Order: sequence, then C-alpha cells, then structure tokens
Amino acid sequence: MGIRIFVTGGTFDKEYNELTGTLFFENTHVQEMLTRGRCRLDVEVQMLMMLDSLEMTETHRKHIVEACRDCGETEIVITHGTDTMVDTAHAIAQAIDGKTIVLTGAMVPYAFGSSDGLFNLGSALSFVQTLPRGVYIAMNGRWFPWNDVRKDREAGVFERLA
Amino acid sequence: MGIRIFVTGGTFDKEYNELTGTLFFENTHVQEMLTRGRCRLDVEVQMLMMLDSLEMTETHRKHIVEACRDCGETEIVITHGTDTMVDTAHAIAQAIDGKTIVLTGAMVPYAFGSSDGLFNLGSALSFVQTLPRGVYIAMNGRWFPWNDVRKDREAGVFERLA
Amino acid sequence: MGIRIFVTGGTFDKEYNELTGTLFFENTHVQEMLTRGRCRLDVEVQMLMMLDSLEMTETHRKHIVEACRDCGETEIVITHGTDTMVDTAHAIAQAIDGKTIVLTGAMVPYAFGSSDGLFNLGSALSFVQTLPRGVYIAMNGRWFPWNDVRKDREAGVFERLA
Amino acid sequence: MGIRIFVTGGTFDKEYNELTGTLFFENTHVQEMLTRGRCRLDVEVQMLMMLDSLEMTETHRKHIVEACRDCGETEIVITHGTDTMVDTAHAIAQAIDGKTIVLTGAMVPYAFGSSDGLFNLGSALSFVQTLPRGVYIAMNGRWFPWNDVRKDREAGVFERLA
Repeated sequence: MGIRIFVTGGTFDKEYNELTGTLFFENTHVQEMLTRGRCRLDVEVQMLMMLDSLEMTETHRKHIVEACRDCGETEIVITHGTDTMVDTAHAIAQAIDGKTIVLTGAMVPYAFGSSDGLFNLGSALSFVQTLPRGVYIAMNGRWFPWNDVRKDREAGVFERLA
Repeated sequence: MGIRIFVTGGTFDKEYNELTGTLFFENTHVQEMLTRGRCRLDVEVQMLMMLDSLEMTETHRKHIVEACRDCGETEIVITHGTDTMVDTAHAIAQAIDGKTIVLTGAMVPYAFGSSDGLFNLGSALSFVQTLPRGVYIAMNGRWFPWNDVRKDREAGVFERLA
Repeated sequence: MGIRIFVTGGTFDKEYNELTGTLFFENTHVQEMLTRGRCRLDVEVQMLMMLDSLEMTETHRKHIVEACRDCGETEIVITHGTDTMVDTAHAIAQAIDGKTIVLTGAMVPYAFGSSDGLFNLGSALSFVQTLPRGVYIAMNGRWFPWNDVRKDREAGVFERLA
Repeated sequence: MGIRIFVTGGTFDKEYNELTGTLFFENTHVQEMLTRGRCRLDVEVQMLMMLDSLEMTETHRKHIVEACRDCGETEIVITHGTDTMVDTAHAIAQAIDGKTIVLTGAMVPYAFGSSDGLFNLGSALSFVQTLPRGVYIAMNGRWFPWNDVRKDREAGVFERLA
C-alpha cells in the first residue's frame, strides 16, 4: 500500500497572477515537485481544496478529516497553509486513529526560486514512512506531534510548546 | 546532540565553470540549502572532501569512516556522489555500529534549477532522525539498508536488490 | 559617458514576504540582474523610489522627471511598474529633450523563477544605446515611442495605438 | 517582415545529462526563452545545428552563411557558442551585405538558474532592430562590429580590439 498525498493549497501552491499583480491559486505543483525529486514512492496525489489556510472553515476541516479516514492508505501527507496547520492537525487527531498523518507546507511558494517547499515535501514523505501511527507536523526539517507544536508567526518557524 | 552532515562532493555540489565550459567543484551548497529549507535542526556541516564519487579511493573511504566514528554525533548525513554511494555505505557499515548514518546525493547539481538535491536533503535529514541505528541510503524519497540497495545506472534511480 | 538606470520599483522588484504571505518591496534586484547578465556597460544604478506604479503620484513623477533632467548622462533606463509606465513616459517626454530615455518593467517579479525581467533589462539597455534621442517604452522585445503605446491589460502586453 | 533566429547550439543550449553526469545538447531553449520574455516580435526560430562552437568546422560555417543569405528576413539573430563566435561573424561578414545580423550566446547554460542567456537574447533582439545593416556580436549588454571584437577568454567577456 502506498502513500496518499492530500493537497489543500497554502503557500506551497500560490502563484503570481501577472495580469493583476496578486497571488492566487491555480493548480497544485505537488506532482511537478515529485517529478523533480525523482520520487519513486508509490504515491497518489489528490487535491481536496485549494485555499489559503486562513480561509479554511470547520466544513473544510471536516472534509479533510473524512478524506483521511476514507482513503485506503495508512500513510498520508497533507500539504497545507502554515497559518492554521496546527488547527487542522488537532481536528484530524481527535477523529482518526491507526494512521500516520504528516502535515507540511511552505513559507515561500514553490513557484518562487527560493522556496522551501521541495525540502519540506522530501521531509514529510520521509517522516510518514518512519514515524509511528499518529498525527504530526513536518516543518523546518523537524517533526512535531500534533499536540506539541505552534507556529511562531514573528519568526516564521514551528516550535514545540514550552 | 545534533546531526552532523559530512560533505564529500558528488553531483550535489557540481558547478558550471563559465570560462572552461566544464563542471567542477568549488564550495559546497549544503549550508545554502539548509537556509533555503528553513532548517531549524541542530546541524553541523563539515566538508571532508570535494570529489566526483567515481574518483573516490579506499583512502578517501577510510577518511569518511574515521570521520563517522570520531564525531560525537550519533546521527550523521553524508552527501555523496551517486555512482559509488553504495560502496561507501558498505565500508561504513563494516566499521561502525550504534549510529544512524544516511547517505544521500543528487542526480542534478543544486546549482541547476531542476535539481533534486533539496528534496533529497530534506528526506535524508528526516530519515536520520527516525530510522534505527544502521547505515542507509536515502534517494528517490525512499530509504534503503546499505546491504539491500543498488543504483540502476540506466534508469538513474536506486532500488532494492532482487 | 555611461548609462544611468533609475529604479522606481514596480513588479521587477516585488518580493514575497514569508511572514505575511504578501508581496512587498525591499531592495532592488537591478544590480544583481546586471551581474547575472555579465553586463560590462558603464552603468550607474540609482534608486529614486520603490513603488507599485498604481501608487505613483504627480509628485513622484515630478521627481523622476527632475532626476532625468539633472543627471549628466544622456542615456537613461528607468525600471517602472507596467500599469502607469505610459503616464510617466508622457510626463518625461513633455519636459525633456536631447536624451534617450527607455522605460521598462516586468510582468513577473525577478525573484520568481519565471520572470521576464532579465530579458526586458537586456532589451532596454540595448535600445537606449541605439535609438535616437526621445522617450520610449521597451517591453515584449519591442520598442515603442512614448506617444504610440498602450498597455493591453487583459493580455498583459504592450502594443502600438490604433 | 519579422526576425529570423538561427540556433547553432553553444552554451545557451547545453543541458545536464543526469545519467552520465556530463553536459550535452538536446533541444534548443530559445522558444522557451522567448515565451518567458513575453516576446511579441514576429520571430521565426530555426535550428541549423546543435554544436559546441569549438567543434564548428568550415562546413558548418558555410551552412550558417548560406542560411543567412537564403532566408527572406533582413534581421537575423544567431545563437552561437562564444569560443568561435567571432570567427563565424567574420565568415558571414565576408559573404553577406544588406542585412543586420547579430550573434549572441551565453557564458552559462540557460538550464542553470544563473544563466545570462535571457539577458543576452533580449539584448540581441533589440540590437537587431536598431543597428544599421552589418554583422555584430551582442554580449555583456554591448554590441560590437564583427571586425572590432575579441573574446577575452581569461575574463570570459567580449571587448573591442586595441
């Protein structure tokens, strides 16, 4: 059984709209990133939504939780905006047992030359294969259990609670 | 105790010499890659050599083995050319116990826009934190024990034996 | 006598603020772009302002006009947001004679991998050396006299009037 | 009548072969570069050969000269390796009158993130529209008449004679 990747949007997939000069979502870059990483894992990419995580509602989270529960895989990576990634991790952890679920994201869009996205995707796909069942966040090269992590918005990094 | 990264060269760090039109080694890009990945691990980067792995001799391998043994860290990532990465993994495994050592590399130099290096570095740094003591290769999003891996040179990917 | 480059901001120099997820201005990339283009012209880069051209006022335009008039060079390139580039070209043309002044910009920020900025800067620096005295816009590989050009905002390209 | 671009290879189009770890030629990047530059000129790209210019023979040069003579356009850009670009310019100048022909190239392959190619292509396409009939080299943001230019191989730049 392979790994399921659920795409929900976030900075990962933001693009520059050259007609309006603003950032927007169009398609996911995850498949392109897997190709670039020469990834040979048995992976299935599925787009659930394409949102800035600040706009994510409880309905969206419910949809993500159901997708995690209903898919056949026990190893799941979720690409997600960093601002509410911890909230979604909580929602998943309260509903699902017996799967390894790793949320990851990016501080800079993949379409920018300087994105951290490829590093984070490589990291999340590795943690999901090796961490015990549970819900985690993978950012900054580190892994965090869902209930021991927060985003330090001023520094733009994730860290353990106290 | 943090993670030690030993740099040995390989495609990872190849650069284009615009005066001669050839590829060569100058400095390692690993620190720059860690910065781009917003890596917040306690990592120390140390350059052991800067070689195409086809030019690596037994003396070079001995030097790598000794560096792995002598450093204080028990988690070690080694960046290495892909052509003889398996040979070096063998040399290390025969000499060292009680450490998690992950070798990784790249099919395309980091200085090229399309490099897989950042994906592989994120992957190796994650595996080294979570795999049991032993010697491994991390490529293509996968991990391989040192004694169950080969490079398929025609396809340019790593795979298990048999 | 060399070429003066006046930087006024525009998409050219937009960057991604990874803490807020928005685009902003910090420093100009023009010097870095000249280095990358291995430019060996006698060029002096001067930042006049750092603005989205939709926020440019008559006071800003007056400042640009004065800078063009007061500098010693007769060949001037101005990097400028595309939305009001034509307006600034008009303001300059009505005030200044005897210099070759070429405005250029970009549809995608230089910091994005897919930017047209380097192409446009190479183009503007070439036109400024070869076009007769006058005020021009250089975009899309083409040159336009200041009074025979408009931006087609739906297509995101510049074209002659009528 | 538009502009003809003849592709002959050179560093512009070198790619990295990830199976052999060497540089090679496959397809030209010129069309992709024009797209990225949002080029709206009436341009036709034609590949004549795909060579390192050190391997270019008199037969190759004859072929380039004939292509320049036989095409309908009077404005021609030629992408060419920098090492013998001056030689080819001489061959063309001795055979052809009444056209503006601009040779350009790159010090770093376009496929590398840090290539000067896009800058040079923007520059060459601009010079070809504005310089009088003749044969020129466009490099480093500058233009040179065919008989007053040499490549300084140690510095990797083009300069006037004497």
